[in-house]
Amino acid sequence: MKRLLTIAAGLCMLAGSLQAQELTNFNFGGRRKPVVSPEIANDSVTFRLKADYATIVKLYGSWMPGYGMTVDLTRGADNVWSVKLPLPAPEIYTYNFFVDGVAVNDPQNVMVQRDGTRFLNMLIVDGDRTANVHEAAHRGTVSHPWYDSKILGLNRRLSVYTPYGYEANPKAKYPVLYLLHGAGGDEEAWISMGRAAEILDNLIEKGLAKPMIVVMPNGNPGQSAARTLGIPEKQIDYRSPEFANAYVKSLVEEIVPFIEKNYRAIPKKSARAIAGLSMGGGHTIAASGLYPDEFDYICPLSMGAQRNDELDARLQGIKKAGYKLYFLACGSSDFLYGSAKELDAALTANGLEHTFYVSDGGHTWPNWRLYLNNFAPLLFK
Amino acid sequence: MKRLLTIAAGLCMLAGSLQAQELTNFNFGGRRKPVVSPEIANDSVTFRLKADYATIVKLYGSWMPGYGMTVDLTRGADNVWSVKLPLPAPEIYTYNFFVDGVAVNDPQNVMVQRDGTRFLNMLIVDGDRTANVHEAAHRGTVSHPWYDSKILGLNRRLSVYTPYGYEANPKAKYPVLYLLHGAGGDEEAWISMGRAAEILDNLIEKGLAKPMIVVMPNGNPGQSAARTLGIPEKQIDYRSPEFANAYVKSLVEEIVPFIEKNYRAIPKKSARAIAGLSMGGGHTIAASGLYPDEFDYICPLSMGAQRNDELDARLQGIKKAGYKLYFLACGSSDFLYGSAKELDAALTANGLEHTFYVSDGGHTWPNWRLYLNNFAPLLFK
Repeated sequence: MKRLLTIAAGLCMLAGSLQAQELTNFNFGGRRKPVVSPEIANDSVTFRLKADYATIVKLYGSWMPGYGMTVDLTRGADNVWSVKLPLPAPEIYTYNFFVDGVAVNDPQNVMVQRDGTRFLNMLIVDGDRTANVHEAAHRGTVSHPWYDSKILGLNRRLSVYTPYGYEANPKAKYPVLYLLHGAGGDEEAWISMGRAAEILDNLIEKGLAKPMIVVMPNGNPGQSAARTLGIPEKQIDYRSPEFANAYVKSLVEEIVPFIEKNYRAIPKKSARAIAGLSMGGGHTIAASGLYPDEFDYICPLSMGAQRNDELDARLQGIKKAGYKLYFLACGSSDFLYGSAKELDAALTANGLEHTFYVSDGGHTWPNWRLYLNNFAPLLFK
Repeated sequence: MKRLLTIAAGLCMLAGSLQAQELTNFNFGGRRKPVVSPEIANDSVTFRLKADYATIVKLYGSWMPGYGMTVDLTRGADNVWSVKLPLPAPEIYTYNFFVDGVAVNDPQNVMVQRDGTRFLNMLIVDGDRTANVHEAAHRGTVSHPWYDSKILGLNRRLSVYTPYGYEANPKAKYPVLYLLHGAGGDEEAWISMGRAAEILDNLIEKGLAKPMIVVMPNGNPGQSAARTLGIPEKQIDYRSPEFANAYVKSLVEEIVPFIEKNYRAIPKKSARAIAGLSMGGGHTIAASGLYPDEFDYICPLSMGAQRNDELDARLQGIKKAGYKLYFLACGSSDFLYGSAKELDAALTANGLEHTFYVSDGGHTWPNWRLYLNNFAPLLFK
């Protein structure tokens, strides 16, 4: 978008003159630099950044072995820094540059995921693991309605996926998956990092999953919405057990009725599933235990529970009420794998039929996308 | 979100060891640095960035006199760079840092707008001009449905705002504003930079505007959706007249019927408005001229038209068909102000009653938000 050089009276004193360092990666006036990044070719990927005055440029990618590990870019012609790396295995990764120690997104790559307060560029290496993350031929609708939570004292934002055909079939009713994020996330996490809309579109189009509504609430009880909207937060310790239960209460007693009133949802236990990762796995374990008559499908991901009398009593409640699926998943190198094994053992000891799905890897979005691909086909059947 | 240091076998060779430059503004492991930015206090605003190894740190803000003008930050204790500036007049601004010549977002400020391919931090200085950009007590729903365009050969994404009360009043029908973005924008531009949902929420809550549906299509005929979704574009010159008309045709002949089938829209000319900025103003002028029986409310913003026989014939067609509002708006320092004056003169010469709303300033989002605040209350009355 062109823009005139308008003069804001009185602010001229603020403007430094153009100095020795011209600005390099900022695309003034809509011109594109000829730099290409990232560039995938055969078995390599090359990252490039134009940075005329940098001393050191590094890259961190989520496929590298741990935070703090980086690779150096080298300065080339026209001050374009680059590094060519072996292509990692098929998956969605995130990366960013560091210019003289400061994190910078790749200005050539508009695909950005937000992880809480961080914006990270995406690198998609295509293969089996990304089969369902691209656009299907038929796509559902993602909506952001607001509901009033009396329990939390806030008007709060949801993400709601309705499947392809929802609008064209005004008499059809659908089952509902409540899909919960982890600590640091919000109501956009499963949409952005989880690619939940694309995964559901593909699974449904392939006939692998039933058409369903997917409800993605904000699990931070002090937040009305993702912080990107600029709504002040309530300053509470939302990790305290009190507020964890307040949120679970609002989920079952406020969000479920809101959805069943405002969407064509089947208002039955057999048409309700709950799944969540990490903190959301904790919410899943709590909601299913505190409200055993609510959900027939229960899927805690990358989370477990300490065995004690309370847990046993809740699991007995679930067993007594009946359920159709208990799908527990965790990565074998997840820091919560021990906790997941403890929940697995508690389920067995209490005689609850269940699946314990163990994947490689840790507490990561590649695993959570994998789990969604695996449990969504098991729901409502 | 904590993450284990997982070892990806075979990739160890990629990892540089931790080098002399530690990484400073990247929040590994979820720890927050105590840096506050931006900080508004009385009549000043202070921007801060921790950058241990930078040589020069600059800031550009949209209130400064033109692209390329920047101010320097100075290095302080603990390598936190800062600059304290007089607070600009109330408005939503965008800004970013430059670290050794490379554009960097403010890692302390999660409020980010996307302008095409650029991500820019927001600075909101509150006052009259921002009265309607914050959350109202009652909020409408923003949805992203997809429609099939046979004309453009693509499945395409819309942004649709339905007002508060839409779900709770399942028999109510609503008028529709088609709100179009400019070149470089997409279906999210009016939501993100335009704060259209917040502005409509506030205008409706205050009784200043009628409850209405607002439809924000993607005006780039080669795009299925915003490029952030990663869907390949059709490589066409979408600025060519052929494709401009193809898009206008798809807007009136495909999007309008899609909305009137799938939403509770009043399917009448008297319940349809069209408005657009810049390129979208061109679409507005074209759609109202080519389809004079479609829209009773016509609002080109920051755009005009060259007077010629074709324009006169189209304006005569609009006059003959009848309409309720022709609201033309432009900034007095907009590079298209001359063009808007020419359209104003053509409207007068052809005997079309209209408003020519002239504001200060140029081709900017502050003006487009101002215009929406001004014309939305005039619609459907």
